[in-house]
Amino acid sequence: MDFTLTEKILRDHLLDGSYEPGKEIGIRIDQTLTQDATGTMAYLQFESMGLSRIETELSVSYVDHNTVQVGFENADDHRYLQTIAERYGIHFSRPGNGICHQVHLERFGRPGRTLLGSDSHTPTCGGLGMIAIGAGGLDVAVAMGGGAYYLTCPRVIRVNLEGELPEWVTAKDVILKVLSELTTKGNVGCICEYVGEGVQSLTVPERATITNMGAETGVTTSLFPSDEQTQKFLAAQDRGGQWAPLAADDGAKYHRELDVDLSDLVPLMAAPHSPGNIVPVSDLAGTPVDQVMIGSCTNSSFADLMTVAEMVRGRRLPSSVSLGVAPGSRQVLMMIAENGSLADLIAFGARILESACGFCIGNSISPKTDSISIRTSNRNFKGRSGTASANVYLASPVAAAAAALRGEIVDPRDLEMEFPRVRMPDRFKVDDSMIIPPLPAADRAKVSIYRGPNIGVPPTNDPMPEDLCGKIAIKVEDYITTDHIMPAGSRLKYRSNVPKYSEFVFEPLDPEFSKRAAVRRDRGIANLIVAGVSYGQGSSREHAALCPMYLGVKAVMAKSMERIHAANLVNFGIIPFTFVSESDYDLLSRDDDLEIPGIRDALEGGAEVVEAFDRTAEKKVILKMVLSRRQREMVAAGGLLPYTVRKRG
Amino acid sequence: MDFTLTEKILRDHLLDGSYEPGKEIGIRIDQTLTQDATGTMAYLQFESMGLSRIETELSVSYVDHNTVQVGFENADDHRYLQTIAERYGIHFSRPGNGICHQVHLERFGRPGRTLLGSDSHTPTCGGLGMIAIGAGGLDVAVAMGGGAYYLTCPRVIRVNLEGELPEWVTAKDVILKVLSELTTKGNVGCICEYVGEGVQSLTVPERATITNMGAETGVTTSLFPSDEQTQKFLAAQDRGGQWAPLAADDGAKYHRELDVDLSDLVPLMAAPHSPGNIVPVSDLAGTPVDQVMIGSCTNSSFADLMTVAEMVRGRRLPSSVSLGVAPGSRQVLMMIAENGSLADLIAFGARILESACGFCIGNSISPKTDSISIRTSNRNFKGRSGTASANVYLASPVAAAAAALRGEIVDPRDLEMEFPRVRMPDRFKVDDSMIIPPLPAADRAKVSIYRGPNIGVPPTNDPMPEDLCGKIAIKVEDYITTDHIMPAGSRLKYRSNVPKYSEFVFEPLDPEFSKRAAVRRDRGIANLIVAGVSYGQGSSREHAALCPMYLGVKAVMAKSMERIHAANLVNFGIIPFTFVSESDYDLLSRDDDLEIPGIRDALEGGAEVVEAFDRTAEKKVILKMVLSRRQREMVAAGGLLPYTVRKRG
Repeated sequence: MDFTLTEKILRDHLLDGSYEPGKEIGIRIDQTLTQDATGTMAYLQFESMGLSRIETELSVSYVDHNTVQVGFENADDHRYLQTIAERYGIHFSRPGNGICHQVHLERFGRPGRTLLGSDSHTPTCGGLGMIAIGAGGLDVAVAMGGGAYYLTCPRVIRVNLEGELPEWVTAKDVILKVLSELTTKGNVGCICEYVGEGVQSLTVPERATITNMGAETGVTTSLFPSDEQTQKFLAAQDRGGQWAPLAADDGAKYHRELDVDLSDLVPLMAAPHSPGNIVPVSDLAGTPVDQVMIGSCTNSSFADLMTVAEMVRGRRLPSSVSLGVAPGSRQVLMMIAENGSLADLIAFGARILESACGFCIGNSISPKTDSISIRTSNRNFKGRSGTASANVYLASPVAAAAAALRGEIVDPRDLEMEFPRVRMPDRFKVDDSMIIPPLPAADRAKVSIYRGPNIGVPPTNDPMPEDLCGKIAIKVEDYITTDHIMPAGSRLKYRSNVPKYSEFVFEPLDPEFSKRAAVRRDRGIANLIVAGVSYGQGSSREHAALCPMYLGVKAVMAKSMERIHAANLVNFGIIPFTFVSESDYDLLSRDDDLEIPGIRDALEGGAEVVEAFDRTAEKKVILKMVLSRRQREMVAAGGLLPYTVRKRG
Repeated sequence: MDFTLTEKILRDHLLDGSYEPGKEIGIRIDQTLTQDATGTMAYLQFESMGLSRIETELSVSYVDHNTVQVGFENADDHRYLQTIAERYGIHFSRPGNGICHQVHLERFGRPGRTLLGSDSHTPTCGGLGMIAIGAGGLDVAVAMGGGAYYLTCPRVIRVNLEGELPEWVTAKDVILKVLSELTTKGNVGCICEYVGEGVQSLTVPERATITNMGAETGVTTSLFPSDEQTQKFLAAQDRGGQWAPLAADDGAKYHRELDVDLSDLVPLMAAPHSPGNIVPVSDLAGTPVDQVMIGSCTNSSFADLMTVAEMVRGRRLPSSVSLGVAPGSRQVLMMIAENGSLADLIAFGARILESACGFCIGNSISPKTDSISIRTSNRNFKGRSGTASANVYLASPVAAAAAALRGEIVDPRDLEMEFPRVRMPDRFKVDDSMIIPPLPAADRAKVSIYRGPNIGVPPTNDPMPEDLCGKIAIKVEDYITTDHIMPAGSRLKYRSNVPKYSEFVFEPLDPEFSKRAAVRRDRGIANLIVAGVSYGQGSSREHAALCPMYLGVKAVMAKSMERIHAANLVNFGIIPFTFVSESDYDLLSRDDDLEIPGIRDALEGGAEVVEAFDRTAEKKVILKMVLSRRQREMVAAGGLLPYTVRKRG
């Protein structure tokens, strides 16, 4: 029987369920990664499981999100994470060492392994032929404890690449093309598997750009084979021994097929305010640009920055444009510092920013009001740059550098410049001295965990009541992202202090939400959320479920919901309902009293459809809950943590 | 007659008054500088003067404070400053080009000239043999408009340097030694003039470290002669033609003399929480260190960073220490990028931060709770790092690097390492492409000024009433800094929006102050401030006078007051009273009703002493106002702006 590469790897890791697309399976996780914004909570949850060490092959704790450090909170969190790593046998990547995905690709990812990361761009390592999935921090904590990770057994989309990339067209344009085909919705539960002769010409960092931004299609992850390119990359990273060849079988069957001829591609951009809003760069030519930002986990590899350096060498940044460059890792930074390219970037006029997520998450280098900012990152949701009125275009480093050179958007093919073809080095600079390896097991128990005043104890939840009686606390529109639910930026520093962070739930949409919900929770009234399509898209941040849970939210009723967010809701004991009839959305209003009698029986009995009565509008709506047996038990128990404790007990 | 160098330069620039120490004089200002935190307001004031161009030889607008850019406000301000510069013939130093004082020293400072800067560390350029004074932005605006700058004709302190610095002892230790002698108070109205054979061995950047941190003694400025070292420095900066020899006459008379034998000095630190709290490093040896920060306008020259790079080359940062390096200017950054030293710093484990004020002003890289942070900057007031509980020690780059190497404070002489003697280069890398020169005069009128939503119109003040009747709005202790009055850090971004920024007046001491004062102002009740000794020390930020003015503050009554702050109060129509008897401080309480009848007559009539009646306590206190004729008129008119308008009209 012929298998997709996805199926091979997943079958190899199957712990629970049978391999049947659309059904829930539980898999073994070999590696985990966390970043500091989601990691503190993941480790607080891990701690509360009472284990003495991690059960994975490898777990790495990165610090890359909150490196601006305004106030004591961030530095306290970094120290907490460092001592947790020392205590439990986890690698710790220090602030300044780079972006988790770039560093993990360079130093830790392995073909054929599974990786679970508490960051939605964890699929980056799919470029190395591994199944790399973004999840909530709680899922990562369970995986670190040796528990299975549950997901919908995926439907596999075959993306067949042919030909070779023309000059000035890059891996970023490949994924933007794929986004224009698959769009940002309708792909939940799928995995993109890249095959075809076009794959061979793409280096691992190029593949990683593609799998990274595959997240924006909503797929579970994206996957490349492990081939000679993979072998070359691992050897250049001094990890040749970790290579193994891996590919789909020729006769494998796919859920859907997509053909992309690389030689037909042109430079593309994602226009405001969605990564799926794809336009040829030539259509935007002449648009004046205020800011250009090069970096992020999507496009800050050695080759990316070298290409930019080659393009700008000896030239001068126009006075109308601000240019920032944030190298993806300390490895990249050291290499361009040693070979003179960093000096070229500085001479051109680039502001050199710390090797971290930085501008991409909107906690620094926000552009001016109504500005146009060209960024090599992966998301351009309204306001994500930190400036609500800014217009962000997502582009390749080549197209971004072209805009910086000209002060306006220009098709890089029109630059009348020789295309700088940068080769991947035969040997990267390998220096892991900013990664603290696990302590010898005997020394771990002596480590005392540092807890700054910003580190709280994670709140727990009560079991679901027999009958759910509540009020609609908010009614929101379509395409609400986790940035709307839990603002990042300057609020992110409260993420380990749930009562405080909960004050900002839905802040961009309704600053009074948190107070209103807390008052009702304290009176014993359940809070309910009504939403449109694609609720919870964007980042994987679990606080978008955890903080609503803290505020007494018991259910979300949406036209449709994103996969990671729905799973996060379940993990925190909130029911992710969808409307059987989308028009029922219109029947419900804020502050309506709603009842779902017998909800606990329905959960435990396996009912897929329940009736809700709007006592205020005097209407009935029909709700669907597509949940596995395990998820039903979890929601009934009040979430994954009480469920896990109960199972163990 | 024999003159001090101070007297020579000031006589050369005298516009008003006679050269008589202790009396007010008005001088011509040749150059001005602004930074972005104080600059927006300075230019708003300049705009309101209705001139078409600046009247100085040279004015430079720097962006170095708010380069983290959280939210649209900072980027909007940068753009406002850039268009203002284009409109009025001002040089504009772009974000990333470096710290104003370092760049001004490198590229613009000139022996014998006067420089007025809206930043308290403007004395840095005293290292070049110029009179460089920090002032409020309003003073700088008036100077840009060709108006005289008024100051107390200074008493000159002769600091006689002998011998040569031993290995591991640096210019920073010289100024820390001077601080231990002069202390941080009692030096208002003085200028430190450095003379003696020991001067010859100090390079201009070393001299600049000394004059920079001279600000912490409270002197008006500090001054070195212009000699062969100056000539060498200017030639290496491709500005040899701007050199002129300048020195005090041998027989000059001084107000006070201080002898420092350089060869006797040892490595020193300023311990928490004052730059005047000087301790030998050896006394602190063994203190574990959490963070080391190298940079700031005091110590981020090429030689400073090269020395650090030499010390750490090939070594590894301990896992317990976080090290940040922020080069002082793009020139420094480019030079260490080109010669490989930047790569050495990165390899050691340094986080490379943008070339800007950054950590020094507490708006980034705050250390953890209760931490010990060693910093090469110039101020360690409690909370200035952004972390209220942090303990900051001020040190030379050599002592900071030693702490980073060992993870604890260590006397660098005990490192058992060869002392890296770094020579000043014969030629610095000169590349001013990130400084936008003034537009040709004909093009300026076409420039349209960019005004983001964060740019307001400066509020004006009413004339002083005949009788001052008010309430004591707050009573504060000794040593209140401008950081206490107007918090910087994350609040700084509101500095061009006075109503918003005023919500944070005295926030660290009394978060309710602003509301209380605003309510009383709206009811027509004057607000009064009672304070202890050295009120208003620290940064020169004029918002510490402007925002209280906006809140209806009409007078401050203190045991003593810092020079720049007292001048700022006058500029905004607030009377800076001191108590004739310090014990009167104890008679007054918050919320007391106070009356000063006939205050306007007293101001205009030249009275130096007035009586205030505390109607609540039923006590009388005697207040002193040491103000020039001009200052009296200014306060009576409601501040410098209404005064200037009235004079012109």
